[in-house]
Amino acid sequence: MPCGEKSTGGPRTRVVLLRHTPDPDRVCAAAAASCYSASPASAIDPRLTPEKMSRTIHNAVGRGHHSVLEHAVFTFSLEGVSRAMTHQLVRHRVASYSQQSQRYVRFDTPGYVTPPEVASRPAAKEAFDRAVSDAWAAYSKLVGLGVPEEDARYLLPNAATTNITVTMNARELLHVFGLRLCLRAQWEIREVAQLMLDEAVKVAPAIFEGSGRPCSGGPCPEGAEDCPLYPGPWGPKEG
Amino acid sequence: MPCGEKSTGGPRTRVVLLRHTPDPDRVCAAAAASCYSASPASAIDPRLTPEKMSRTIHNAVGRGHHSVLEHAVFTFSLEGVSRAMTHQLVRHRVASYSQQSQRYVRFDTPGYVTPPEVASRPAAKEAFDRAVSDAWAAYSKLVGLGVPEEDARYLLPNAATTNITVTMNARELLHVFGLRLCLRAQWEIREVAQLMLDEAVKVAPAIFEGSGRPCSGGPCPEGAEDCPLYPGPWGPKEG
Amino acid sequence: MPCGEKSTGGPRTRVVLLRHTPDPDRVCAAAAASCYSASPASAIDPRLTPEKMSRTIHNAVGRGHHSVLEHAVFTFSLEGVSRAMTHQLVRHRVASYSQQSQRYVRFDTPGYVTPPEVASRPAAKEAFDRAVSDAWAAYSKLVGLGVPEEDARYLLPNAATTNITVTMNARELLHVFGLRLCLRAQWEIREVAQLMLDEAVKVAPAIFEGSGRPCSGGPCPEGAEDCPLYPGPWGPKEG
Amino acid sequence: MPCGEKSTGGPRTRVVLLRHTPDPDRVCAAAAASCYSASPASAIDPRLTPEKMSRTIHNAVGRGHHSVLEHAVFTFSLEGVSRAMTHQLVRHRVASYSQQSQRYVRFDTPGYVTPPEVASRPAAKEAFDRAVSDAWAAYSKLVGLGVPEEDARYLLPNAATTNITVTMNARELLHVFGLRLCLRAQWEIREVAQLMLDEAVKVAPAIFEGSGRPCSGGPCPEGAEDCPLYPGPWGPKEG
Repeated sequence: MPCGEKSTGGPRTRVVLLRHTPDPDRVCAAAAASCYSASPASAIDPRLTPEKMSRTIHNAVGRGHHSVLEHAVFTFSLEGVSRAMTHQLVRHRVASYSQQSQRYVRFDTPGYVTPPEVASRPAAKEAFDRAVSDAWAAYSKLVGLGVPEEDARYLLPNAATTNITVTMNARELLHVFGLRLCLRAQWEIREVAQLMLDEAVKVAPAIFEGSGRPCSGGPCPEGAEDCPLYPGPWGPKEG
Repeated sequence: MPCGEKSTGGPRTRVVLLRHTPDPDRVCAAAAASCYSASPASAIDPRLTPEKMSRTIHNAVGRGHHSVLEHAVFTFSLEGVSRAMTHQLVRHRVASYSQQSQRYVRFDTPGYVTPPEVASRPAAKEAFDRAVSDAWAAYSKLVGLGVPEEDARYLLPNAATTNITVTMNARELLHVFGLRLCLRAQWEIREVAQLMLDEAVKVAPAIFEGSGRPCSGGPCPEGAEDCPLYPGPWGPKEG
Repeated sequence: MPCGEKSTGGPRTRVVLLRHTPDPDRVCAAAAASCYSASPASAIDPRLTPEKMSRTIHNAVGRGHHSVLEHAVFTFSLEGVSRAMTHQLVRHRVASYSQQSQRYVRFDTPGYVTPPEVASRPAAKEAFDRAVSDAWAAYSKLVGLGVPEEDARYLLPNAATTNITVTMNARELLHVFGLRLCLRAQWEIREVAQLMLDEAVKVAPAIFEGSGRPCSGGPCPEGAEDCPLYPGPWGPKEG
Repeated sequence: MPCGEKSTGGPRTRVVLLRHTPDPDRVCAAAAASCYSASPASAIDPRLTPEKMSRTIHNAVGRGHHSVLEHAVFTFSLEGVSRAMTHQLVRHRVASYSQQSQRYVRFDTPGYVTPPEVASRPAAKEAFDRAVSDAWAAYSKLVGLGVPEEDARYLLPNAATTNITVTMNARELLHVFGLRLCLRAQWEIREVAQLMLDEAVKVAPAIFEGSGRPCSGGPCPEGAEDCPLYPGPWGPKEG
């Protein structure tokens, strides 16, 4: 299966494109063209030339006719990500999620994500690792004392890893990429968004080429004065 | 492309399954299993036996864990349906639509759906056909007088045919089938829902087998006293 | 109840603001401020000065932090609008609708909307009125022949009036106003959107002041080349 | 402001009903009635007798015509709840959330929720309190070392308290109450759901009376065999 990985100091984050609508660019273009045609999408679909297909997608994206991009749907398996990240991710409501449960799964050994800002400072890294280790020891102790896993997990840190299956259509993905690839977005969700985009663009180039940060290095569309032009662990996207 | 048709007196209604998530039963089962597992969906996906897959889907549907069914997504092209029907259909909000525009497409010849209750009564049928023909003549006259199509179409009847591309996930489809296959549902949307179900069950049997009317011939879950047990043009589903 | 009206040649279109979240500007500002505060919204709410409230809303809107505007919700009763208009309106999915049913209500006398492009041309107006009248006569004839209302209504034109109750939050309203007040939007939904905005801005000035067409007379954000700068029946918004 | 509280061992959980649609029962009843009437909702609204209003709501809920309940909207401030709880809560997608940010707010002193299953076991309680205290000490140490708050918070436990403003309509609330008041639901979200219901029923009795657990002590609608009939901290709802 196609996937991308990043090692973030702790276990590896993996993003796997588990499924997607076959020929996603084409179905969106056919749906878009059918709005202005006597013919239905099923008749237009096999007839579209590659040029016409690209132009139709390009026009739809450029003109704000984004609803046609909803016919292309992508399912990702996000693995080894932190619950700090997923708590942000699941705020995107036009999407479907199935997440590993901390109520029903027992976590016997520590699995956690270490932020680059921590990993790059030896004293911080040491304190971080020890604190995580202590949290897991306390979790195990509580379970040993008869506390249900779903209550013992109140001690697990935001850094704890989780797996989550995510289904989003291309319109929502473009929206998420615009927000989460911004240099001011939280680093882990930015990393995950980039891995998702890397996979999506391979199978739907007409839709996703050129997508990403809304600024493209120009003035911030949000008028931000606090943009991290030199954002430490990541560096400018171009650099 | 797989499709189903019904002739309703006017032009043919066609329902084409244009795209769907590959192997839809399996991806939903993998996502469901990953919630209770140390393994992510990408690892579970290739390992699921057919029996385990069916049982997982069956449990998810039976226990109300419906969110896992959202990872399977289906795109239909509905063709030659009436705008009376689509005005109802688009009220289902957890779905994506691209519809043929009456603002931008000129309709030179009448295309319309005739209700079975009209088609079965010769006097009604004659009045119906004449009225539709008159409406189209007036539409064409207005266009000839320089009225924009988008305004002339105020005269077109609810019966006028349209094409619409619809994307829904399996959870929403089950919800729609439950509502719209009910014998008290409006006949045309019931017909379209049945054609959609006929296609969906072929590619996702574990999800859709047994779906349909919620009553299954038993007492009405809505407590209705006006259920058409002998609903004329359709007959009981079992009959 | 606060309301606005427009006469469009046929019966009067009325837009009534039926309900709204009390003190809508304030609750959104309190929710926004609580994201960056040790205090919860219930503590911030009574303490916000008018200046701080306006500034918080202004920043949220300007910076793209639009989710906080979802806490202000508005319920409108749209009356005497055409089904051509409502078929477009209900495509906005982040909203709640309750619409007068053509299945269960019998329409004994013609009620319809006449487009300005028709009303302004005497020959077109005459043809339009006659066609509508004929459609209603045929509808009544079918009902008299025993055809159910829900089937006879296949003859009713797009112009037929309907009533619909609509609930939307402020974020979605801003989105709808941006799309539907555009001079290229269909005239009737533009008219209704303007009447809705006129009511909303009275009770939530901080949120809605300055909202409306995204172009404000500048270059089209959609890159349109067909903008009706002199759109006939309406005239430029500024004029 | 109307509110309810529960002490869960740590800081107090508070649920404040911050805003709601005025006269929520009535607006839903008027919208429901308008679907079957020649009159619009604005005309029906002031005319409804209390009996007619109750009966209309009762019929809508009983018959599955739930969409009319979407016109009544409620905004709650949930305070002192754990992030374990909010990660579940925000999975309900037909709702609006504004949550206290762990990226932008510094948490100098421990604020956390203690599960009853922990609080009732002295040894577990001691280990829990110490683990939380250690986590906060490590968080503060990282911040002192120059690690940004948004990264130091990777150490904060699921038990950490947060504030969140939640807006939901009555239809979604009924859905959430059905799921989350189930005795098998996680204890904290069950507690919060009960406090929300306690407030909602005061202002919308016709909608919310009788809502709650779907089982009402009868057989489980999910066919569960693991229902905690004696669920410790809560006891059966009836008991």
